[in-house]
Amino acid sequence: MVAEIISVGTELLMGQVLNTDAQFIAKKLAEFGINNYYQVTVGDNRQRLLQTINTALSRSDIVILSGGLGPTGDDLTKETAAEALGLDMECNKAALEHIKERFKRLNREMTENNLKQAMFPKGSIILPNPNGTAPGCIMESSNKAIVLLPGPPNELIPMFTDRVVPYLEKKHDFILYSRVLRVFGMGEAALEYALRDMIQAQTNPTIATYALTGESTVRLTARCKTYDEGRTLVEPVIDAIIGRIGDVVYSTNDEPLAQVCANALAASKLTLSVAESCTGGMLSSALVDIPGSSAWFMGGVTAYSNAIKTKLLNVPESMLLQHGAVSSETAKQMAEGIRQSFNTDMALSTTGIAGPDGGTEAKPVGLVYIALASEQGTFVEELRLTGNRQRIRHIATLNALNLLRKHLNK
Amino acid sequence: MVAEIISVGTELLMGQVLNTDAQFIAKKLAEFGINNYYQVTVGDNRQRLLQTINTALSRSDIVILSGGLGPTGDDLTKETAAEALGLDMECNKAALEHIKERFKRLNREMTENNLKQAMFPKGSIILPNPNGTAPGCIMESSNKAIVLLPGPPNELIPMFTDRVVPYLEKKHDFILYSRVLRVFGMGEAALEYALRDMIQAQTNPTIATYALTGESTVRLTARCKTYDEGRTLVEPVIDAIIGRIGDVVYSTNDEPLAQVCANALAASKLTLSVAESCTGGMLSSALVDIPGSSAWFMGGVTAYSNAIKTKLLNVPESMLLQHGAVSSETAKQMAEGIRQSFNTDMALSTTGIAGPDGGTEAKPVGLVYIALASEQGTFVEELRLTGNRQRIRHIATLNALNLLRKHLNK
Repeated sequence: MVAEIISVGTELLMGQVLNTDAQFIAKKLAEFGINNYYQVTVGDNRQRLLQTINTALSRSDIVILSGGLGPTGDDLTKETAAEALGLDMECNKAALEHIKERFKRLNREMTENNLKQAMFPKGSIILPNPNGTAPGCIMESSNKAIVLLPGPPNELIPMFTDRVVPYLEKKHDFILYSRVLRVFGMGEAALEYALRDMIQAQTNPTIATYALTGESTVRLTARCKTYDEGRTLVEPVIDAIIGRIGDVVYSTNDEPLAQVCANALAASKLTLSVAESCTGGMLSSALVDIPGSSAWFMGGVTAYSNAIKTKLLNVPESMLLQHGAVSSETAKQMAEGIRQSFNTDMALSTTGIAGPDGGTEAKPVGLVYIALASEQGTFVEELRLTGNRQRIRHIATLNALNLLRKHLNK
Repeated sequence: MVAEIISVGTELLMGQVLNTDAQFIAKKLAEFGINNYYQVTVGDNRQRLLQTINTALSRSDIVILSGGLGPTGDDLTKETAAEALGLDMECNKAALEHIKERFKRLNREMTENNLKQAMFPKGSIILPNPNGTAPGCIMESSNKAIVLLPGPPNELIPMFTDRVVPYLEKKHDFILYSRVLRVFGMGEAALEYALRDMIQAQTNPTIATYALTGESTVRLTARCKTYDEGRTLVEPVIDAIIGRIGDVVYSTNDEPLAQVCANALAASKLTLSVAESCTGGMLSSALVDIPGSSAWFMGGVTAYSNAIKTKLLNVPESMLLQHGAVSSETAKQMAEGIRQSFNTDMALSTTGIAGPDGGTEAKPVGLVYIALASEQGTFVEELRLTGNRQRIRHIATLNALNLLRKHLNK
């Protein structure tokens, strides 16, 4: 089966909006094993849109359009798609009631042009839009199908997930069960190399690797009749992957590192504080980003000046003079100092040279020390990172979280 | 003049990569006033690619392709584009030397397939790639032009800016001079409304508004012969906009709020510290993100627990009991406490309810207090923010920075 994606909107052609819809739809099609050979973006122009839809129908089984479903004269996707399939338009009573209801609730007068949103190609399946005014629809004719979706991602994504996925599942007579493994400490290329034979041999579930900044993921997608069957198909493959690459897999449920640490801290009722130099609040912010973090995160200090390292973290001036602020000694003392001051079970610290200036031959930009203090002692790691200031700080933050995760897993 | 954008890559059709290249190119074309009616994404398949290029050439003057310039067998954009224009390939000596040089420097053996990267359509303009191995090129034939660019954005963007923009400028006999105003405290819709008559009346420079998360921008783009002429055209319009909307414009050079604060602090030789509760390190991190921030940023405390607010920021337990951690009183004391502890000229604080839990009728999710302490006294602002946890924290951070900016501007 072949599907084509058409994105409609002048704002896309002007570069005012990033086309995340096309990526979302493409990813979903790939999960279904539906081939996608073309994605086309076209403006709100009847003639060019009609020609684009006709071309798509000539080479694809399903054409998925997004955008141009609104009430204004610019919005002509629905009428043009109906014309391409040779379908007349008719007023849908339920949709009309819904729109009238909405205007009544908002205490606003419904103008004539809003009636347009209740008109649909004859016989089409209407896709309700709980997050906006314009419903979507699916129309079928002579073995071809056209799916119309609203442009805003917060309307398109739930409509696709709740309405189009079941339609495709019914068409295919199977459902999809997906799991995402998150991996830290192994690049995407190395991961793909380590799993190459499995990726090539596996057909159900399929296995695919992706790169994130500083980390990687593995997506497993099974075609199945039920979610239980999906789990039965996928879980042995997850076990086989972990058996091969081991502890670098930190989540089998697509959770970020901070969330995995949060789960482990909450389960073991341990508290955490952080002392940051080069990451400067980024580590703290990643932890506070987890809802409910106040249960286990007590807070931290960004000790950007040496005076503060001494005053609040108890790093001796002599240590800063002898070893420098970027040293394993200082990282160790920062973690121990914040743990004592904040009276927590665990404490993390970071100190390093994020650049672009401040590097020397002995201590180049990208040199970072991270430390973890607990009642079992203090562990320090030296990192040699590359990239710009933002990236070095981000990767240092991930490494600190991973150090904590490994320790909590023991 | 009409241009068409073709993005080449199976990873785009699979949804593995978001197509930021097409948006970047579209935005640049719009600045030049070049019409863009179609954007097409197609895979690394010779037949479909050739057909897509031929269609584009039949309806556009310039076709801009990105992706598929690498050394592997999959990469066939260059050969296919040359075929569409009827041009033969030839080896470019300078490009060959560059590739040999690169491999020598990396101490790696150059394999045969790398020679492919030195082959170009006859008579084409080669676009060097300082950020990767694959050079781009521009080929012209019978009033049509094809521009080939590498796919990775960190290679494409500088190549477009440094090589393709001058080519388009020469073709047009004008250059573009752009300035971006950054606006805080006025939404994009209000901004567009306030400037509507200017936006409609102005043709050189053109004026366009865009929304960022929690802030807005205004881009002015002039067509001119020299940068001096551009400045002369644009600056009176900037003055007129500031005259109309005033102090909400915080940068006329596209600098983020943290950078604007950094400039003002560095110029006045003032130091800063921060005490964060709901933003939890995000404010600190935004400041540390500015290179050279160690000159004026001394650090901060994430006081996520009440005990730490009392111990490190000197917030009396009685105040926390009477007014709560989320109160103007606590925000004021947090700012004053960190200013004293870190011995800085200025200090910022944040405390609020970021959600999703923890809200009450009296203190709902989104209630945030921010404070600024200096020798002139302490100023507190109450914010009522909406959105998810991440957004509330982000907007609170921007408001704190804006409070500092306004104070430094006085």
